[in-house]
Amino acid sequence: MTEQPTSSRLSRRGLLGGGVAVAGVAGAFAAGRGSAHAGEDDAAATASAGRPGTYAFRGAHQAGITTPAQDRLHFAAFDVVTDDRDALVALLEQWTLAAEQMTAGEPAGTGAVGGDVRLPPDDTGEALDLPASGLTITFGFGPSLFRDADGKDRFGLADRQPAALRELPHFPGDVLDPARSGGDLCIQACADDPQVAVHAVRNLARIGFGTVSVRWSQLGFGRTSTTSTSQSTPRNLFGFKDGTANVKAEEAAALEEHVWVGVDDDAGAGWLAGGSYLVARRVNMTIEVWDRQPLGDQEAFIGRTKGTGAPLSGGEEMTEPDFEMPGSNDQPVIPVDAHVRVVHPGQHGGARMLRRGYNFVDGSNALGGLDAGLFFLAYVRDPATHFVPVQLAMSTSDALVEYLKFTGSALFAVPPGAGPGEHVGQALFT
Amino acid sequence: MTEQPTSSRLSRRGLLGGGVAVAGVAGAFAAGRGSAHAGEDDAAATASAGRPGTYAFRGAHQAGITTPAQDRLHFAAFDVVTDDRDALVALLEQWTLAAEQMTAGEPAGTGAVGGDVRLPPDDTGEALDLPASGLTITFGFGPSLFRDADGKDRFGLADRQPAALRELPHFPGDVLDPARSGGDLCIQACADDPQVAVHAVRNLARIGFGTVSVRWSQLGFGRTSTTSTSQSTPRNLFGFKDGTANVKAEEAAALEEHVWVGVDDDAGAGWLAGGSYLVARRVNMTIEVWDRQPLGDQEAFIGRTKGTGAPLSGGEEMTEPDFEMPGSNDQPVIPVDAHVRVVHPGQHGGARMLRRGYNFVDGSNALGGLDAGLFFLAYVRDPATHFVPVQLAMSTSDALVEYLKFTGSALFAVPPGAGPGEHVGQALFT
Repeated sequence: MTEQPTSSRLSRRGLLGGGVAVAGVAGAFAAGRGSAHAGEDDAAATASAGRPGTYAFRGAHQAGITTPAQDRLHFAAFDVVTDDRDALVALLEQWTLAAEQMTAGEPAGTGAVGGDVRLPPDDTGEALDLPASGLTITFGFGPSLFRDADGKDRFGLADRQPAALRELPHFPGDVLDPARSGGDLCIQACADDPQVAVHAVRNLARIGFGTVSVRWSQLGFGRTSTTSTSQSTPRNLFGFKDGTANVKAEEAAALEEHVWVGVDDDAGAGWLAGGSYLVARRVNMTIEVWDRQPLGDQEAFIGRTKGTGAPLSGGEEMTEPDFEMPGSNDQPVIPVDAHVRVVHPGQHGGARMLRRGYNFVDGSNALGGLDAGLFFLAYVRDPATHFVPVQLAMSTSDALVEYLKFTGSALFAVPPGAGPGEHVGQALFT
Repeated sequence: MTEQPTSSRLSRRGLLGGGVAVAGVAGAFAAGRGSAHAGEDDAAATASAGRPGTYAFRGAHQAGITTPAQDRLHFAAFDVVTDDRDALVALLEQWTLAAEQMTAGEPAGTGAVGGDVRLPPDDTGEALDLPASGLTITFGFGPSLFRDADGKDRFGLADRQPAALRELPHFPGDVLDPARSGGDLCIQACADDPQVAVHAVRNLARIGFGTVSVRWSQLGFGRTSTTSTSQSTPRNLFGFKDGTANVKAEEAAALEEHVWVGVDDDAGAGWLAGGSYLVARRVNMTIEVWDRQPLGDQEAFIGRTKGTGAPLSGGEEMTEPDFEMPGSNDQPVIPVDAHVRVVHPGQHGGARMLRRGYNFVDGSNALGGLDAGLFFLAYVRDPATHFVPVQLAMSTSDALVEYLKFTGSALFAVPPGAGPGEHVGQALFT
């Protein structure tokens, strides 16, 4: 089910002028967002138009998974730099508080601007004039939080490590950069304004100073997935619509089957029930080479037309591909190595993912090409059944892989949402 | 004067479905943008709301200078990889055509999707469903286009090189990365949707394959400047409003005095009259260190309050700072090394710039800090009088410089706008 927006609380906008909150202004703003919300079902609206301003941080599941995918992303993975379990728990408490404030459109902490000039401000300030912009903040725990590379139980959590939370295997085509892989903790911040997403990660990193340090981070400028039937399918940097068969917020049964960890999934890791696993993969696209391929080849690699996104077997974007339909040359019309066929749930026992990836451009590489591609994010109930087989099939038999380089990889267990008075992941520590 | 939006032509949105243009849909969309335009003067509107969908590519000046600063940026610098002057001119012709198409919301080239499947598509496709999003594309010529490092006249242009178009001097605090500096040509693509800006640069790079290669490129996720009185002042990553004293589109006399190159400015470079100089500087901010400074120190470094952006001498954001007002300790209330004082036009013979910079985050650095800061862009009539003295003062006496590292630098001559039937920069080659 799609999360409902909460009633808008006092936004940062109301705090301008050193704390002189103008309730009338904040109220008018909330009303404006509310009326814009009526346009959410209008597929012709631009991506960021007509979306609610705030999503509740607390709930049965963490926000930022089934939430209609926001336009912009800042993702960060952290190393924990202390051995002190209490310091780690204290940080999760502080992060929970700050995340709840920021997702409501408020500054982090208590001081904001106009506080004690002898102290550093609680909030760094670059989002002071901006609304919540649909911000969600989603936390995850990496395998290395439970055991370090030498197998050491760092925080007394080793016996709570989920069986499925282990480093992903090496796949053909992986050229992983260790500096863009792994991490003890992760934060996914999504918003319709990138400054709001950046502000969230920066303030959480600031709060964690001395307890965690940023291991790697990634900005994504454009969503590539739909997580709600109310959204239109965006295009990836190959210029194609992708992810048409994504699990969507409205598919309650599919979420239970493919996304949320069940109560009985892992006897040793009951704390994760209602949570999920997050697979993060940085996928560079060799777009300059791709752009020189004939349109027909591009469409054969994908298995869809470039214009409408319809399968090559015909119909419209949402039409199920007909993998048996014969084409010319004794080949099926959707080639045997077409991306849409290789990764189709029908090839993998019906396993589906909730994808939430973003296009990225990180400047240029040494060869003068754009350092660009897809920052793949997918939420699954079990990576062993829902991700690894699909990635393996893709790495070994997908025509698209010739134009891809996997440069970063990480896996996180994403705990369920924090209840009232709880910090995120509290059940893991109790 | 603010540029007026052109009447919206057929947008990419109308081309969906393999060229089945639906004029009614395109018309309805244009009407929607037009009505939204009425909100442009509402300072409380979010940055991207209420802006026209398209700006004309042709005109007396290039678009993207006085155009109300769009929210997102993709900037690219190119090396010319041919010695063939005709190939360079042909590229400028092709770039002009494609820029005119893309800024109108159309795909680049003629084929779009649904064309000859045996050929690569003319347009890479990732913006097919997106409106023009206020896209502007602005071209510039670097010093190295005229003479290479050995002084060689590469394209018979050496005697047309403007006297002011030379490499910027080394400034104290510069730790420039050659891989992020210089360039024979540049393209500044600004839009309210980053996918549209990225699409523009990518397609222009693709068109230039064999003639140019990307030397470096930079994404900016949030504008830091206002170039129109209709815009509110955004915040930089120090959390402060900056650039309050920017030259704005509505200041016709100031534009003539400080931004546009005059007919008599440079007898040997008459082709540049009506153009400008673009200074590009990648300025890393050590934001983790900054965030640990007390609020009072931060405000003293800037010379403004963090909340409203008012000068420390009082008033509101737009109030002129009083640099003589005494404070405590026999010091002026705006310290002698405050940023607002050091770079103030009053310190530099009244010289003003039209700034158009963007916040950036390019992931993380090796120390776990964010690789983040300001991508400074400024248009000036003469860099020797309008930029170099200001940068030198800043590098030597601005308190802020302790928190800055200048990691990239480039200067370009930006020709005037292309007239009907002309390519950009045509007067340079005739």
